[in-house]
Amino acid sequence: MAAPHPNAHLVHAADAARLAFARPLPRGAIPAALDTLAEALESQRASLITLAAGESALAADELAPEFARMTGTLRLFAAVARNGSWARPAIDTAAPLSIGPGHDCRSMLMPLGPVAVFGASNFPLAYGVCGGDTASALAAGCPVIVKEHPAHPRTGRALAALARAALDGCGLEGFFHYLHHEDPLDHATARALVAHPAVAAAGFTGSRVGGLALEAVARARPTPIPVFAEMGSANPVIITPAAATDRADDVARTLADAILLRHGQQCTCPGIILLHGTLDAGRGLIEALARRIGTAGARRMLAPWIADAFLRRIQDCRSAGANVLAGGAPAPEGHAAPVLLSTDVETFRASPTLHDECFGPSALVVNLPGFDSLAASPLPPSLTCTVITAGPSDPDAPPAVARAAASAGRVIIDGVPTGVRVCESMVHGGPFPATNTPHTTAVGPRAIERWCRPVTWQHSPDHLLPPAIQNANPLGLIRTVNGRLTSDPVGDPASGL
Amino acid sequence: MAAPHPNAHLVHAADAARLAFARPLPRGAIPAALDTLAEALESQRASLITLAAGESALAADELAPEFARMTGTLRLFAAVARNGSWARPAIDTAAPLSIGPGHDCRSMLMPLGPVAVFGASNFPLAYGVCGGDTASALAAGCPVIVKEHPAHPRTGRALAALARAALDGCGLEGFFHYLHHEDPLDHATARALVAHPAVAAAGFTGSRVGGLALEAVARARPTPIPVFAEMGSANPVIITPAAATDRADDVARTLADAILLRHGQQCTCPGIILLHGTLDAGRGLIEALARRIGTAGARRMLAPWIADAFLRRIQDCRSAGANVLAGGAPAPEGHAAPVLLSTDVETFRASPTLHDECFGPSALVVNLPGFDSLAASPLPPSLTCTVITAGPSDPDAPPAVARAAASAGRVIIDGVPTGVRVCESMVHGGPFPATNTPHTTAVGPRAIERWCRPVTWQHSPDHLLPPAIQNANPLGLIRTVNGRLTSDPVGDPASGL
Repeated sequence: MAAPHPNAHLVHAADAARLAFARPLPRGAIPAALDTLAEALESQRASLITLAAGESALAADELAPEFARMTGTLRLFAAVARNGSWARPAIDTAAPLSIGPGHDCRSMLMPLGPVAVFGASNFPLAYGVCGGDTASALAAGCPVIVKEHPAHPRTGRALAALARAALDGCGLEGFFHYLHHEDPLDHATARALVAHPAVAAAGFTGSRVGGLALEAVARARPTPIPVFAEMGSANPVIITPAAATDRADDVARTLADAILLRHGQQCTCPGIILLHGTLDAGRGLIEALARRIGTAGARRMLAPWIADAFLRRIQDCRSAGANVLAGGAPAPEGHAAPVLLSTDVETFRASPTLHDECFGPSALVVNLPGFDSLAASPLPPSLTCTVITAGPSDPDAPPAVARAAASAGRVIIDGVPTGVRVCESMVHGGPFPATNTPHTTAVGPRAIERWCRPVTWQHSPDHLLPPAIQNANPLGLIRTVNGRLTSDPVGDPASGL
Repeated sequence: MAAPHPNAHLVHAADAARLAFARPLPRGAIPAALDTLAEALESQRASLITLAAGESALAADELAPEFARMTGTLRLFAAVARNGSWARPAIDTAAPLSIGPGHDCRSMLMPLGPVAVFGASNFPLAYGVCGGDTASALAAGCPVIVKEHPAHPRTGRALAALARAALDGCGLEGFFHYLHHEDPLDHATARALVAHPAVAAAGFTGSRVGGLALEAVARARPTPIPVFAEMGSANPVIITPAAATDRADDVARTLADAILLRHGQQCTCPGIILLHGTLDAGRGLIEALARRIGTAGARRMLAPWIADAFLRRIQDCRSAGANVLAGGAPAPEGHAAPVLLSTDVETFRASPTLHDECFGPSALVVNLPGFDSLAASPLPPSLTCTVITAGPSDPDAPPAVARAAASAGRVIIDGVPTGVRVCESMVHGGPFPATNTPHTTAVGPRAIERWCRPVTWQHSPDHLLPPAIQNANPLGLIRTVNGRLTSDPVGDPASGL
């Protein structure tokens, strides 16, 4: 039964977010609120993990590192907001130029406004109510309106209560809102949220259908807004013949572990494995992988509808010409057993459905009749592409790595794509259809830039400028001044600027 | 009569651009080509200006600074490409972390692929065939395919011949293509270009109708691509009562000059003037402005269809409730006389058509019954918003500047929006509908970022990394290493990195 459409709540949240965004904030309120929220979450760690485990069928020891990532990301964005250099402040002082005008110009990134957050099914903590999108949007200075995920409403509500209290307590009243959403088939709240004129941007982690639907709503507005949608991908893995020869068992074990981690329910799950499978070594690797996948047990999936979708996708892949190599035994309602599929390169090339993510514990082996036929195989655009080599002198590595870089947001050499480091150099993003915004990342400090646009002030008196670009550099930021990075003040004869 | 559709030429250009993009380039080829092109253009300066003047009806002394901007921008992007730090290289070395994996990760911006360039009608040089989009796309490493502008095909072909020769001579064969387009009513080439699978992005400067049409084509592709469309704007000017009181004549003269510059055919032409017009001072300023606009003569416009569109827009504004204060006398075919319109704030609020750009020599005065009614007036999202004050202590300045920053890409205080400085802190962009991509700028070094997406390499041997993120820092770039900006190498015990 569909929940009543919570339009009144949405309108109230959107209006409150708009007002909060217009209000000047006490300096330091945002980082303090993010740190306070991290502390509040940590104080409820055990009960939140129990709640999330109960709703997601993820084990407590799978949720423990995710919990640490959630609070770590909040603290990271507190530090980013406290530092302020993320806003890319740039100053060009007045100067007579040989070409064009030489006005004093200063720019920085400014927050867009209230952000709608649509969290992931598979990371109820790290990409949930208090996850990366919420943390980065708040750090940018944007209020957030989080839509509940119907797969874990109780976890969501507990997180939301803590977020609301932490932010209210730090002077950020109106910066956090949470909209209930109990019926997974009812998309009215999601659509209404993206369509609301007070909403300035949206972050989404989930299926391609969902991401593109929200993007279409955003584009149909009188004033379109950006939707940053991370829509999953098949994350190809290329195994060179020398790697298969040198260490088939090691590679098979590592890959199987990555495929089975969290029962395959990761956006970076390695889903397509390309290798020269007619070689003895390639055959051996495939057999080792098949043994591991075939003997792994069925597990309950994140939600009943996710289990159903997984089984339908496997069936679609089989209809498109993929064969079951191992696994796939019938499982109780809401559960699924891991599956290893295989196909030849001609079938793979001819069947776009085989290029898409199969969200769950599965992978598709693409048998290359020779490793040089890799060049003729599609390499589906993805969040990640992995190249397994026999080491730095493997002659097949350079072209494979170059090809991977052209089709993915992140290239992994001799590793697995699962496990995303939270750091400046991380790109958790990638070409369409992995995301609809390949110029962005959803992980790491640069994720904050999604919620901003740059603004220039020309010929402004110092006191009308944001502090980040005032002469004295009161925030102590690293700024680009007349083309040079510096934290020196401007207009001080001693600094020469 | 429609020109035959140059599909064969387009397909040839797109294929050649795709092949060129896939080819490794000699180091330094791109900056050398950009500098060589600037030199080649300068060697033909007089004849190019004569050609452009003949086709655009712009005067030679209007085109001279534009010519300098074109070659200056090419040289700027040569310097940007030579430096390489624009790619935002970031390195996080392997480290045991308390939260999540600590892999060695390195990222930088990578070029998207062939870029389609749609130049502007109003800047045949600076935003034309060898203008800012071409220069920044080439600097990023993207081949360009320029669609001819039907308002100045001879200028375009002369520029294209020089570009082709300069790039070919520097080892960039296949990096420059030019498609003829003689019939302004035929959009088939433009659509086919954006739809071509080899094209990875597009830059457009022109009308909203044109920009949105190309964006729609780009989004309907199996793999959508970004279109960066700068679609003009009304560029509001807010005049405080104290400014009107202190220096009405000065403000009127400066504004009229900006409105009439290049006969109003600038994307930053000040098109809406908001002031307290019932004050004596406000009335005086409006009268002074009306005298100047009313006595300025008719001029030939850039193209006959641009003159027609201008006259239709003025008629639409009159139908929407704007009155003619001065000017607007009938003019010969292809010409137009400047016009000053006025309206009251209620009509302005009720008539969205009055919020849009009126491309040509005109401005609309919005009479505020009191300056505090500014808050109740729309401030159309624009490339620029200007605030004219009586100086730093003007009490009306702070709220007006804050409002301007929320609705524009660039805020000008006590100046005019025409005259865009080419510098790091320049934002030539802005909220929809001024552009469809408010996170970008079309002017200044950061314009290069439009043609790129970030890529991470994880756990890569040094020799498989792009030089920008190799340990030794062979290009001498400023990089973010473990969160700190430095040009030090990595892995050298002396650097501590």
